[in-house]
Amino acid sequence: MDRLRVVLVRSRNPLNIGAAARAMSNFGFRALRLVTPWEPSYLDARSAVGAADVLLNAKVYGSIAEAVADCTLVVGTSAIGERELQHPLHLLQEAADLICVRLTRSPVAILFGSEKTGLTNEELSHCHAILRIPTVQQNISMNLGQAVAVTLYELSRSVAVTSTGAAPVHGAAQPVNNAEASADAEELERLTEILFETLAASGYVQSQSEPSTQEKFRRMIRRLDLNHADAETLLGMLRKILWKLQHEHRTG
Amino acid sequence: MDRLRVVLVRSRNPLNIGAAARAMSNFGFRALRLVTPWEPSYLDARSAVGAADVLLNAKVYGSIAEAVADCTLVVGTSAIGERELQHPLHLLQEAADLICVRLTRSPVAILFGSEKTGLTNEELSHCHAILRIPTVQQNISMNLGQAVAVTLYELSRSVAVTSTGAAPVHGAAQPVNNAEASADAEELERLTEILFETLAASGYVQSQSEPSTQEKFRRMIRRLDLNHADAETLLGMLRKILWKLQHEHRTG
Repeated sequence: MDRLRVVLVRSRNPLNIGAAARAMSNFGFRALRLVTPWEPSYLDARSAVGAADVLLNAKVYGSIAEAVADCTLVVGTSAIGERELQHPLHLLQEAADLICVRLTRSPVAILFGSEKTGLTNEELSHCHAILRIPTVQQNISMNLGQAVAVTLYELSRSVAVTSTGAAPVHGAAQPVNNAEASADAEELERLTEILFETLAASGYVQSQSEPSTQEKFRRMIRRLDLNHADAETLLGMLRKILWKLQHEHRTG
Repeated sequence: MDRLRVVLVRSRNPLNIGAAARAMSNFGFRALRLVTPWEPSYLDARSAVGAADVLLNAKVYGSIAEAVADCTLVVGTSAIGERELQHPLHLLQEAADLICVRLTRSPVAILFGSEKTGLTNEELSHCHAILRIPTVQQNISMNLGQAVAVTLYELSRSVAVTSTGAAPVHGAAQPVNNAEASADAEELERLTEILFETLAASGYVQSQSEPSTQEKFRRMIRRLDLNHADAETLLGMLRKILWKLQHEHRTG
């Protein structure tokens, strides 16, 4: 359970940050990571009476890429709503099984977006999959602290099942990638960046392309579900191509 | 799902009342009942921007007995802790199955205690059973809004299973009482009162006995799991005995 990273992205309300930490403590999870929290809110939450150890040991990051760098599976939470789906979607119960299987061999991150907007498309582009808590259609928007509590409750149940060696109960639980060592988010982000640079150098995209293009490539790389060796191979290929393109450009 | 009553007892924090209402709305439950909430807190919660319909339609009661009068099953939530158990205890998942089976034929109440103390022994004496959310031992105390959200998430899952006619998945789910019409909490409380009155009149207890004695009889009556007909029969018996005792007393 220490391999799970709960990542709060752009949280503004100290009560929600505190509530997330409290739920982690209730269900036995420890690694809280905050991406660009609203500073006063974060400091308020930390100084609150009875702030859990979880909160005192929380780490703050400047970007999602840094916060999830050591994870091989990154799952974003979303109510979906009117949003067009660009990712595999799992209901909480099924997602919990997938996450628990992956946790047996490497770190996993679950991302929760800001109270007002949830996760943006750019933020979701760092994710391999989306998790939805099955609410009724009439009111899909959950309070942040409650969404964290419900998610961790379900995960702690699945961890119990997975760690006793019993088969996951819900059938759908297949590891996303059976390779021994999945690529972590840091490798994937390096790959995303060099791919974009290469495509820009080749003229396939403009280097000033809109962010949505970059998001598209970031999602694509995550969809490939690469293992560590694949990622290294692709990185080497792209580096070579990029060097060649830049060299051609200079001599051309 | 409209048969479930979520009962908040002595809640003080308007944010928690609002959060409970929001979770009910997320998972499709409607009947919120408040027992002696701290008045300003309740009014604050109601006037909050975006207060759910659930909250606007909430009902306020002066006692637990009144709030649960129409229910045939009353389940109290508790972290247990050091408390000595006087009730059947179910983990959330198992309790959810029991509750859903009962909801198919009559109203059920789930009680959540105040933020500071949880449910007292007197308050728990109105319950047939206790439900515990499986937290880690190091931190068993959950935030009220989060406890409500986790409980209703699990219930909405079990409702889905029960209403599709599938057998409850967890095996342990046997209806508490198979009789057609279980006694409701109002009958049971009437029975409790007349039993106590009778025992006082007989000299078995002092009429000024400490509250713990009354709680003991209240719990005992709930343990019997009476159906409607049994309850009526017992009421009739006790009324007769009481009349006789009082009559003897006057003429003696």
